[in-house]
Amino acid sequence: MYYFLNDYSEGAHPQVLKALTETNFKQTPGYGLDEFSKAAANLIKQRVACPTAQVHFLTGGTQTNLTALSSWLKPYQAVIAPETGHINVHETGAIEATGHKILTVATADGKLTPELIQPVLDQHKDEHMVQPKIVFISNSTELGTVYRLDELTALYGFCRRNNLYLYLDGARLGAALTSRNNDLQPEDLPRVTDAFYLGGTKNGALFGEALVIVNPLLTEDFRYSIKQRGGLLAKGRLLGVQYLALMQDDLYLRIALHANTMACKLQDGLKELGIKFLIDSPSNQIFPIFPDEHLKELSKFAQFEIWAKEDMNHTVVRLVTSWATKEEDVLGFLQKVKASLK
Amino acid sequence: MYYFLNDYSEGAHPQVLKALTETNFKQTPGYGLDEFSKAAANLIKQRVACPTAQVHFLTGGTQTNLTALSSWLKPYQAVIAPETGHINVHETGAIEATGHKILTVATADGKLTPELIQPVLDQHKDEHMVQPKIVFISNSTELGTVYRLDELTALYGFCRRNNLYLYLDGARLGAALTSRNNDLQPEDLPRVTDAFYLGGTKNGALFGEALVIVNPLLTEDFRYSIKQRGGLLAKGRLLGVQYLALMQDDLYLRIALHANTMACKLQDGLKELGIKFLIDSPSNQIFPIFPDEHLKELSKFAQFEIWAKEDMNHTVVRLVTSWATKEEDVLGFLQKVKASLK
Amino acid sequence: MYYFLNDYSEGAHPQVLKALTETNFKQTPGYGLDEFSKAAANLIKQRVACPTAQVHFLTGGTQTNLTALSSWLKPYQAVIAPETGHINVHETGAIEATGHKILTVATADGKLTPELIQPVLDQHKDEHMVQPKIVFISNSTELGTVYRLDELTALYGFCRRNNLYLYLDGARLGAALTSRNNDLQPEDLPRVTDAFYLGGTKNGALFGEALVIVNPLLTEDFRYSIKQRGGLLAKGRLLGVQYLALMQDDLYLRIALHANTMACKLQDGLKELGIKFLIDSPSNQIFPIFPDEHLKELSKFAQFEIWAKEDMNHTVVRLVTSWATKEEDVLGFLQKVKASLK
Amino acid sequence: MYYFLNDYSEGAHPQVLKALTETNFKQTPGYGLDEFSKAAANLIKQRVACPTAQVHFLTGGTQTNLTALSSWLKPYQAVIAPETGHINVHETGAIEATGHKILTVATADGKLTPELIQPVLDQHKDEHMVQPKIVFISNSTELGTVYRLDELTALYGFCRRNNLYLYLDGARLGAALTSRNNDLQPEDLPRVTDAFYLGGTKNGALFGEALVIVNPLLTEDFRYSIKQRGGLLAKGRLLGVQYLALMQDDLYLRIALHANTMACKLQDGLKELGIKFLIDSPSNQIFPIFPDEHLKELSKFAQFEIWAKEDMNHTVVRLVTSWATKEEDVLGFLQKVKASLK
Repeated sequence: MYYFLNDYSEGAHPQVLKALTETNFKQTPGYGLDEFSKAAANLIKQRVACPTAQVHFLTGGTQTNLTALSSWLKPYQAVIAPETGHINVHETGAIEATGHKILTVATADGKLTPELIQPVLDQHKDEHMVQPKIVFISNSTELGTVYRLDELTALYGFCRRNNLYLYLDGARLGAALTSRNNDLQPEDLPRVTDAFYLGGTKNGALFGEALVIVNPLLTEDFRYSIKQRGGLLAKGRLLGVQYLALMQDDLYLRIALHANTMACKLQDGLKELGIKFLIDSPSNQIFPIFPDEHLKELSKFAQFEIWAKEDMNHTVVRLVTSWATKEEDVLGFLQKVKASLK
Repeated sequence: MYYFLNDYSEGAHPQVLKALTETNFKQTPGYGLDEFSKAAANLIKQRVACPTAQVHFLTGGTQTNLTALSSWLKPYQAVIAPETGHINVHETGAIEATGHKILTVATADGKLTPELIQPVLDQHKDEHMVQPKIVFISNSTELGTVYRLDELTALYGFCRRNNLYLYLDGARLGAALTSRNNDLQPEDLPRVTDAFYLGGTKNGALFGEALVIVNPLLTEDFRYSIKQRGGLLAKGRLLGVQYLALMQDDLYLRIALHANTMACKLQDGLKELGIKFLIDSPSNQIFPIFPDEHLKELSKFAQFEIWAKEDMNHTVVRLVTSWATKEEDVLGFLQKVKASLK
Repeated sequence: MYYFLNDYSEGAHPQVLKALTETNFKQTPGYGLDEFSKAAANLIKQRVACPTAQVHFLTGGTQTNLTALSSWLKPYQAVIAPETGHINVHETGAIEATGHKILTVATADGKLTPELIQPVLDQHKDEHMVQPKIVFISNSTELGTVYRLDELTALYGFCRRNNLYLYLDGARLGAALTSRNNDLQPEDLPRVTDAFYLGGTKNGALFGEALVIVNPLLTEDFRYSIKQRGGLLAKGRLLGVQYLALMQDDLYLRIALHANTMACKLQDGLKELGIKFLIDSPSNQIFPIFPDEHLKELSKFAQFEIWAKEDMNHTVVRLVTSWATKEEDVLGFLQKVKASLK
Repeated sequence: MYYFLNDYSEGAHPQVLKALTETNFKQTPGYGLDEFSKAAANLIKQRVACPTAQVHFLTGGTQTNLTALSSWLKPYQAVIAPETGHINVHETGAIEATGHKILTVATADGKLTPELIQPVLDQHKDEHMVQPKIVFISNSTELGTVYRLDELTALYGFCRRNNLYLYLDGARLGAALTSRNNDLQPEDLPRVTDAFYLGGTKNGALFGEALVIVNPLLTEDFRYSIKQRGGLLAKGRLLGVQYLALMQDDLYLRIALHANTMACKLQDGLKELGIKFLIDSPSNQIFPIFPDEHLKELSKFAQFEIWAKEDMNHTVVRLVTSWATKEEDVLGFLQKVKASLK
């Protein structure tokens, strides 16, 4: 069975597991106040060239999003997100559960632009409506697309001029930064966002997201928010240890690049077989469209997610690769698809 | 430096880490729908002799408490807890953040009784006040005390008669069940509570709490609540794998017993040195009272938590042992204390 | 200055004010437990032919919506509403502030149908997404349109089959029930909704909405919810007294009919002047489209709300009539418009 | 039947009702943006000698408290209140429903002091606990007691030094300011609080509370909060009109004084009959203690609230007077009590 269901199907990258094992008996204070966590935070701040940032480690993406957004919004303030944004569709109303409305914008490719956001601002002008305050984007997006530096620069400038914060969900930031379409450097991130996170769960960690708060207005008492939302891990050192390993020699980017490379091979191979795609994704999630009658056959030898109906007879599926995807599996899968198409 | 700060100062018990390592490359579905998690849930249900229970794995205690209580309470309903209860003092208002009041009861030893709860019920009779609905207890308590079977039986009967649910925070359930004062069997728990959890974070896991929902009225759509509160771990298998290891040959109880044994030695040793205690704790948290002038000396060779001022010249400290506490460290510490008292 | 800004520009209908004055010195218990409130609730139950319903009086529409929906939804459940629904655009995120997501549906005329709702149900199938549970509609809608009996019957049947509740915001229910397009009788309402309210604020009361809960599953402890959300008026009798007056000899419907008649005259008169409309509204809100250069002139002699830009050179405005609108003002306004068009 | 149940048993003071009647047909914008509301706000600002304050009108006490506190607190911040505080016991968890913990302090007389608050601050020092931010007091208190100027000055100074806001619930502020024990002038209030409200519901209005926000840090976007919590009355002018009447010639204080005078007569009369009191209240709520066997007799000719059991054979009741209490009823009641005691 070939496994393209997601990028969290295995445990951790061996380097990460090794680090956890080696440090297992070291005694440390709890709640992320240990030396590992401090060192990992410093490495991250160095890597993004922002010594004044605050780095907090949390265990998962939904938890990070809800903790961050609820910490920064006043009760009557709202977050603007693409309709496809993770917070809008796949977090069971987690943001609303903290009291905040999500104002959604339809997009072609999962990406926001100033032009798409402006009408939302125009419509929200007085106290009978929520007050937009944060713009939420994902990079890579839920459709695998990535933002280019000029796009982020424009978006951030727009946010500044309109008194909005720009928050970047980086659950798959590794995939974005190593995408063939990318021209964004890690060092650019603090210059074009108010806060972002480097996702670990989907890029080699057992679990963990490293939230980097750039804007000092957003840092106050942030640990209170983490604790209150249930995210302050007793053995916080586990997050520090994992990120130390991931930041070592850019392991984080190297394994993300591998995932992208595997996805690219998959996409190219399927295209050669005449398969069409929902969107031309340059990262580790790809969206081929299969005839429905082919789908059942496919399911016999591969695992993947059904994404959407394309039309009466076709279905979009999502294939995801990861640091753990083996080239032999990509090739084997393509072989099987080819055979099954005949 | 002797380390009695808490029971989560190290990583995981070696058996747990070994299980994580061995299963690391196994590909599984996410979010706890994997075979490891199912098997672990089954083992737990067997161990507590309650095949109809639902078992959910979460990553931490505060997260478990807030997810469970907010899932079960209607907006105007409240939870009754001892003043010392973890949800009341050490969760940064996590329960209130989900919208619910905690009605507190002063206790001598951190334990609730029907007699202590009755006045709360008497005072909350109409719609101008919250409606008490859940009784929250910890076992062992935040003061190290444990409930006996007859106490829990009485409490649960009282709850049933008064249309209340009884929820047991088992962050240190292992320590309770292996305490020298305990007469409660794991199999008793489903008969005397509506839900409880077997804490892993403080008893050998990297992280993790296994919530056992006994009352079928409390199980509906519980996974929605976990997801919404940010607690549905992508790699849910990590929890399953760890609990499989902990349930194997009662490792969970055996290592908890070790922690208790170490605490008992500590307590006995300190008593021999003439040290008085806040309370006679039969589990892995003990509360010696030191003269203030002695405290500074102590701090030079040991780490522990300052609990409270006892009087003008004395301070209560908390010493905690764990599965990882070594007997040689207990003895070494006692030796040092003895020397420093002279 | 002609005043078509809204239907709450004056105080109360004289009959209502008279009733308040006559009962002013009567001493009653507080919080709606008085005889006036009970009698008014009974009259309403009689009028809608539903003796088993529960009637609760609240002071405003947003308050009623947020109290009702938050009382009935579990934390992870959501409400489906038209994009134009009052709860979605004009309540400052009041529903989200109680923790619930609103799932919006684009509509042509502000009305929901089973066909429009079905895709939302199809997309929300597991615990990664909120669970749709209540369908919110307004009658008349925010665009002045009204539901016909067969439409509501179909919608309610659909809701039942899909385990959804149907809630009808009746801020302008009087206008709906007396619209020229209406074939719905007050007695039909309990057969085609789970709950609805008869709005008083926009139909002759100083303030007040009468929430009628038909479905017994939704009635439990409802007064707790009212109190908790700040809606339990100390002098609850004020609501009872007002609704007693409004239910007397169908005053409620008679004055709503007057508002509709005035709006109809306005709409017909403007049509005769060649003015086009956004939508053909059969109730007391109408939406003429004026050339922008005409708008400034209009503003000199009339007050109204700017609704939306129609195109580069035209603007939709909203004109609202009420129980207090005088025919002479309608005619006078039309005269002035006519003159200004030349 | 003599009616001492509460101070909201009648409608409005005749002057208030007259004002509502006289202005009934005046057309105004909604939501408190009318001239009446502006004029009333100005009168209030003049009366308390604080031209820079913001005044907002809300319909009830619980609504005012929950809107204000939830607007000013960050999610992890808490409010300190006396155990007897209205927000703690009689608002069905309204504050917690907005996400905030109430930290309670036991008091002898319902009043807070710096000494009583200090220990709460000492106990809440890190992110594992909520962060105290607002101190809630009532004047007069729920026990009828009042704060003197030096007490408030000390409390406010303490709050400032500890970075806390001081909020005064003035549901019965009229009774406080006209109490025989009072030395506080209306003009003092802005100097010793960050915000307070002049309660109308319990002092002559049909309904209404005038919130005066003194501290500019607390005023931002406050109307968003009112709207979101369901408190922005469509016909906001009703509140303006009523407060205009109440502020005219200090009607507000004059009728509060009447209530106090009546309570004083009641208390003196009962004392003469040998009745003991729970507390020596100098305002319009008094707390006589009756033998239980006498209570049943009393209930035959008077309405009042049972407050608490004093001992096995005695019960504390609460008698409340208001602007509407007639001296003849006070005398008649005393007569009846005297007769029934024989």
